[in-house]
Amino acid sequence: MNARETLAGSPDVRRTNLAVLLRHLHLDGPMRRAELTERLGLTRSTVAGLVGELGRLGVVEQSTTGAPAVPASRGRPSPVVRPCPLGVQVLAAEVRIDQVEVALVGLGGTVLRRDSRPLPDRGPEAAADLLAETVAELVATAPGRVLGLGVAVPGVTRHDDGAVRFAPNLSWRDVALGELLASRLPGTRVQVVNDGDAGALAEHLRGVARGCADVVFVEGEVGVGSGVIIDGRPLAGAGGYAGELGHMAVAGPAGRLCRCGSHGCWETEIGRHAVARALGLDLGASRAALVEALHAPGPEVTARLDRVARHLGAGLATVVNVFNPRLIVLGGLLREVYPRVSTRVQRALLDGALAAPAEQVRVVLPELGDDAVLLGAAETVWQRVLLDPVGALAS
Amino acid sequence: MNARETLAGSPDVRRTNLAVLLRHLHLDGPMRRAELTERLGLTRSTVAGLVGELGRLGVVEQSTTGAPAVPASRGRPSPVVRPCPLGVQVLAAEVRIDQVEVALVGLGGTVLRRDSRPLPDRGPEAAADLLAETVAELVATAPGRVLGLGVAVPGVTRHDDGAVRFAPNLSWRDVALGELLASRLPGTRVQVVNDGDAGALAEHLRGVARGCADVVFVEGEVGVGSGVIIDGRPLAGAGGYAGELGHMAVAGPAGRLCRCGSHGCWETEIGRHAVARALGLDLGASRAALVEALHAPGPEVTARLDRVARHLGAGLATVVNVFNPRLIVLGGLLREVYPRVSTRVQRALLDGALAAPAEQVRVVLPELGDDAVLLGAAETVWQRVLLDPVGALAS
Repeated sequence: MNARETLAGSPDVRRTNLAVLLRHLHLDGPMRRAELTERLGLTRSTVAGLVGELGRLGVVEQSTTGAPAVPASRGRPSPVVRPCPLGVQVLAAEVRIDQVEVALVGLGGTVLRRDSRPLPDRGPEAAADLLAETVAELVATAPGRVLGLGVAVPGVTRHDDGAVRFAPNLSWRDVALGELLASRLPGTRVQVVNDGDAGALAEHLRGVARGCADVVFVEGEVGVGSGVIIDGRPLAGAGGYAGELGHMAVAGPAGRLCRCGSHGCWETEIGRHAVARALGLDLGASRAALVEALHAPGPEVTARLDRVARHLGAGLATVVNVFNPRLIVLGGLLREVYPRVSTRVQRALLDGALAAPAEQVRVVLPELGDDAVLLGAAETVWQRVLLDPVGALAS
Repeated sequence: MNARETLAGSPDVRRTNLAVLLRHLHLDGPMRRAELTERLGLTRSTVAGLVGELGRLGVVEQSTTGAPAVPASRGRPSPVVRPCPLGVQVLAAEVRIDQVEVALVGLGGTVLRRDSRPLPDRGPEAAADLLAETVAELVATAPGRVLGLGVAVPGVTRHDDGAVRFAPNLSWRDVALGELLASRLPGTRVQVVNDGDAGALAEHLRGVARGCADVVFVEGEVGVGSGVIIDGRPLAGAGGYAGELGHMAVAGPAGRLCRCGSHGCWETEIGRHAVARALGLDLGASRAALVEALHAPGPEVTARLDRVARHLGAGLATVVNVFNPRLIVLGGLLREVYPRVSTRVQRALLDGALAAPAEQVRVVLPELGDDAVLLGAAETVWQRVLLDPVGALAS
C-alpha cells in the first residue's frame, strides 16, 4: 500500500473523479446531479465542473426534464445528467461456431447497430477477415468516436495479448486473434475475451446478477462457457484462464470423451451434444431444432433429460461447494433446458452440496437473453475505457 | 468509489500509515528505516515519527546493529526497525480430531509458547472448555498484550459470527463456537476459521506460496481441508463457506459415500481413510502408523496408492481448470503421499487439465509443516489487528 497524499484539484484526482462519475452514468443511466454529488462524496461545485467538462467532451448532456420524479423541495430541481450513446461508442463481436455477431454499443450500454454474418470458414484468418470487414462497416457509419473492439470467443484466452490458446469447437489452438485483428484494423484497440467471462460480466453489470458480488455464470452451447465473479471481481487466475467449469471432471474417469481430450468433463453431459443425444436428435441438429424440441409439451422431454439433469445438478453442487455463490445463472441452451428439469436438478444439487452454502444460492435464468455475451464483450472495452475516459478520448 | 480528499497529517491517514508500516515489519521482519521509507512512499521525517510512535506503544524497537549488510554510503546508516514479539501477541488454536493445539504468537510471527492437549470428548462444550482452559494458561504468562484468539476448525465456518455450520469429522453441526469461547474468555476477541483457509493463509504469507497471488492449498487429513487465494485475497464466497474442494464430485455419482452425505467427493478418494484402505491398514490406524507405512521403501507402496494417485491428479486437473493457479500446495498427509506417486499424479493432472493453465502451475509441498494451520489461525487474528493496531492496542 502506498499512502500518497493528493489534493482535490490535482490532475490525477480530477481524472479519477471524471472516470468515476462517468462510470456511474454508464452503468446506472441518467440521474440528477444531486445524486451524483451524493454518490461521489464531492462538493456540488466540483461535480458541476466535472459534468461541464464531460459535456464539452460530448459524452454527457444535462437537462432539467425527463428525470425520475422527486418530492417537492426548496430551490431549483437539480439538472438531470445523462450519458450520450451517440457521443462515444465501442464495438463488440462474438464468434460462434457458425456465425459472428457484431454490435456498435454506445455509452450507457445502448446497442445502436447489430449485425450477424454466417461463418462458413472457421479458420482463424478467415474469421479475422470477416470480423474486420463487418466491424469496419459499423465504424464507417458510427455517429461518434469509437474507442475499441471487444471480441468474445468460445475458448481459453490469454489476458495480456488476446491470444486464443484453445477453442476446441472452432479447432483453434494458439491463435493470435488479437494480433490478426489489430493488423486488419489499425488504430483500433482490440481486446479478446472468453465468452463465458463476457456473459458473466454483462449479467453482473446490467442483468439478473446486478449488484451481486458472488455469481457463477454457466452458458451451455456446444461447449460450456462460464464466468465467475468473486467479491465483485471477475475470476481470472494466473494467466486469465480460470473459470473453465465446462472441464470440471464431474462424471468420473469412465465418463464420455471430451473435445479437450479428457474424460467425464461437465460439458460432455450438459452441452449441446449431450442434450441432442438425450432428445434423440442428430448431434448436428441446429440450435433452433433443439430449442423447439425442448419446448415440446408433455412429460417425455423431462424424462429424456434425466441424465442431463442429474449431471447438471451434480456439477452445480460442486460449484456451490467451491464458490459459495449467491447466484448461479444458467444461460445459452441451459436456459431452455432448466425449466423442464428444475426439480431433478435441484434434488441433485441439494444431494451434493454442503448445507451452509446451499442455503445461500439461487439458480436463475439470465435477463439479457442471447445478447449477454455480446454486451459483455462491449463492457470489457468500456471497463478499460472508463478507467480513464479523458485519456481514451484524447488518444 | 468515494473520492475523499485527505491530508498527510490527518488522523485517518496517520492511523492508516501506522498500520501499513507495522504490517510490513510483521510480515517481512526487521528492516532499515530507509527501506520502510521507500516502501511506504512517505518522507523520512514522517516515517521517523511513525516509528517513534510505534516504539512508544512498545510494538517496535530501533537499533543500529544487526541489520543486513549495506554497501558503504554517505552519512549515518539508517537505523534498523524490528517488530517486538514480546510487546504484543495473539493466541492461536487448532481443533483436530483427537487433540487441540494452541500457541502464543508474537508480532512478527514468532511462536513464543506451544501446547498440545488430547481431546477425549469431541462435544462442543467439552472442546470449548479445553480450549479456554489451555488458552487461559498462555494468557496468564504472556509477556505482552494479547489481542485476540484465532481458532482453526476442520469444518465449514460462517465468517460473521464464527459459527461452525458443519464439521463432519467432529460430528458438529451448527455449533456456535465463537459464542461458546467468548463466554468462557470475556474480553478476548475470538475468530473462528476453517483449517484449510488457515493453512493457505500461512503458506501465502510466510511459506512456500509467499508473494504468489494465485494459490490453492489442499490439506489431506481425515477430511480434506482447502483454502484458495485469488489475486492475493482469500476466497470467501457469500457466507465465507467457499473453497470446500474436498467435496468436489470428482469420482462420479457411483463413487464412495462421503461423511457429508454425498457420493464421490474428492475426500473419499484422497483423505486419510482412502490412504489407509489403499495401504491395507485399518481405517482407525493412527496418523503416525500411516506416515510410517508411506515411508516404507520399495515399489509396493506406489502400486497400492495408484487409485489414490489417479483421483488426486484428476481433482487437481479440475482445480487447475477452475482456478488457473500458479501454485498448488499439498499438505497434511498428502505431503507424505505425493512424493511416492508424483509421476502418476502428474500424468492424471495433465490428462485432465487444459494445456494453457496446466503450463503455469507447479505442485509443491508446504514449507511450514504441521504448523501451517496454527500459524494461519494466528495470522487470521493479526490481519484484523493490523488493520488498525493503534485502535486494537487502545481497546
